Amino acid sequence: MVRGARNEGGGLFSALSRLMAMPLQALAADALPSWNEGPVKQAILDFVTRSTTEGDAGFIPPEARIATFDNDGTLWPEQPLVQGAFMLKPLRARVKQAPSLAKRQPFKAVLEGDLSGLSNMDKSKLMKLLGETHAGMTEEVFIREVRTFFQHARHPRWSVPYNQLAYVPMLELLRFLRANGFQTWISSGGGIDFIRVISEDTYGIPPQQVIGSHLKKTFDGGHAPSVLRREARVAHVNDKAGKPVGIDEHIGRRPVFAAGNVRSGGDIQMLQYTRRRPRPGFALLIHHDDAAREFAYEEKDGASLKAAREGGWAVVSMQRDWRRIFNGTRGARTGNGRG
Amino acid sequence: MVRGARNEGGGLFSALSRLMAMPLQALAADALPSWNEGPVKQAILDFVTRSTTEGDAGFIPPEARIATFDNDGTLWPEQPLVQGAFMLKPLRARVKQAPSLAKRQPFKAVLEGDLSGLSNMDKSKLMKLLGETHAGMTEEVFIREVRTFFQHARHPRWSVPYNQLAYVPMLELLRFLRANGFQTWISSGGGIDFIRVISEDTYGIPPQQVIGSHLKKTFDGGHAPSVLRREARVAHVNDKAGKPVGIDEHIGRRPVFAAGNVRSGGDIQMLQYTRRRPRPGFALLIHHDDAAREFAYEEKDGASLKAAREGGWAVVSMQRDWRRIFNGTRGARTGNGRG
Repeated sequence: MVRGARNEGGGLFSALSRLMAMPLQALAADALPSWNEGPVKQAILDFVTRSTTEGDAGFIPPEARIATFDNDGTLWPEQPLVQGAFMLKPLRARVKQAPSLAKRQPFKAVLEGDLSGLSNMDKSKLMKLLGETHAGMTEEVFIREVRTFFQHARHPRWSVPYNQLAYVPMLELLRFLRANGFQTWISSGGGIDFIRVISEDTYGIPPQQVIGSHLKKTFDGGHAPSVLRREARVAHVNDKAGKPVGIDEHIGRRPVFAAGNVRSGGDIQMLQYTRRRPRPGFALLIHHDDAAREFAYEEKDGASLKAAREGGWAVVSMQRDWRRIFNGTRGARTGNGRG
Repeated sequence: MVRGARNEGGGLFSALSRLMAMPLQALAADALPSWNEGPVKQAILDFVTRSTTEGDAGFIPPEARIATFDNDGTLWPEQPLVQGAFMLKPLRARVKQAPSLAKRQPFKAVLEGDLSGLSNMDKSKLMKLLGETHAGMTEEVFIREVRTFFQHARHPRWSVPYNQLAYVPMLELLRFLRANGFQTWISSGGGIDFIRVISEDTYGIPPQQVIGSHLKKTFDGGHAPSVLRREARVAHVNDKAGKPVGIDEHIGRRPVFAAGNVRSGGDIQMLQYTRRRPRPGFALLIHHDDAAREFAYEEKDGASLKAAREGGWAVVSMQRDWRRIFNGTRGARTGNGRG
């Protein structure tokens, strides 16, 4: 009893001593439990600590704390591309209407059940296809279609709804940034209206903080209620050099934090566009190098990793930096049970 | 002493009695002290009370409380058009570069010192002109130019900086809506980057909640820091049927409250676009009928007032509904000292 009490007292004292000796960043480390200790995690914690410490040279006033995130491959997997999976049904319906399309790509591949064709498609081509399948459709009908997709579709590998596959370390990062006064935005090459349907529930990001590609729309006031209809014409492709343009149009400020991933060089310009003065913004680049728990792929020309070296960006190795990737408790079965 | 005490007690008692007999809306009326009592003020108060009363059929969940405001003629005067006044200097500079332009309109009128030509110009034409004067310019340089304008330019009638002429009743309305959980947005036919420079200080509306017309921009990563440059091409005219399109792109939700003004029918579609279900949104249309304190003008075809009758919109008579228009304490001298 006496020993026990002394041990407890000693334990408490030594715990307090350790706590007081720890730098502030280490105390905040609990905010990112799914990140392994290492230079990337430390760099994030240091950046946020300095950004929020008044008097520090790295202090960022709250209104300038803008963080932008790519979506596919940065916040959730892009194999297959989720919007590509969504397009399967409307593309099949379109071929039924116009059977001659069955011989043309990507219609041909889709009819043969090959999702990879849609998955590897350039974002601007995917948007053009959306124009073919969704021209004339109103906002309200489109949103209903997307909701239905997310209710019923399942990821081919993990057999769970796509929006249950958000990366847990990135969800923690979004929450950590918001808790420190950052506004979190999505800046995706994918369709803006598609992502807006699930952004709030999946990422805690409201629709008005989603930037993406979109078709031209036309106001139709011919009846009440007035509606907006999609045209077959692509208005904006929010990919590559289009990302800073979309960010400027929606936010009107340079982000101080941006996150993207290695695959097609689609995020390079967004990461380059982070604020440079009075001090550099934070650029985070995710490298998919974990075939066991997620996927492993490289970029043909290595442009994103090259830009990362030149710009001093933080490169996330999914294998090394992420303790877990998916939220098992929400029903995601991972390939090897480790995810 | 005794009498005084009794009087105080009686006064307090009667004040309490009056207070308890007042409906809740009347208590909230203090939020709009520059609005005269009347059906328009009452309709605003009723709408906000019902929107925020859980269980009421008119309750609106916080995330759907989106309010959009036109700028010119709705939040500040449009005689002259502020962006038109801003254009004087760059247009003169452009004519100096290319003297042959001096014979073409609107250059000719500008050189002759006639601001009304610019003021009455269609928003899409004004944006085209901006393309002529500002093509190639970066964000950063443009913003500096706008700041300088607001520091030095004075309104020809009241001799104060343009951004000190925000309508006080509308500033109260913006604050009142925000205090009740509404997000306030600007949706202007004017240039998005122009308004963003002053929106936060003038209206309490951050840049990312400003929607407006804009030129196409191009990312230039050729040097560090990377920049965006304006092209001579108009990308979006946020006027008339363009307003719901801009609102949809930036917000992704239908507003439940929208405010515009009578002049060119530029706000009709935005007001029609307010949410209809489960119950109608609130549409506010300002009629400039106060030549003494501000300006009086009508619309050629009367389309806005006709749409207001058909849609049951609240029409503000500046003369009747606004107790004061400008904030005299900030140095605005009004035409007849009553403003």
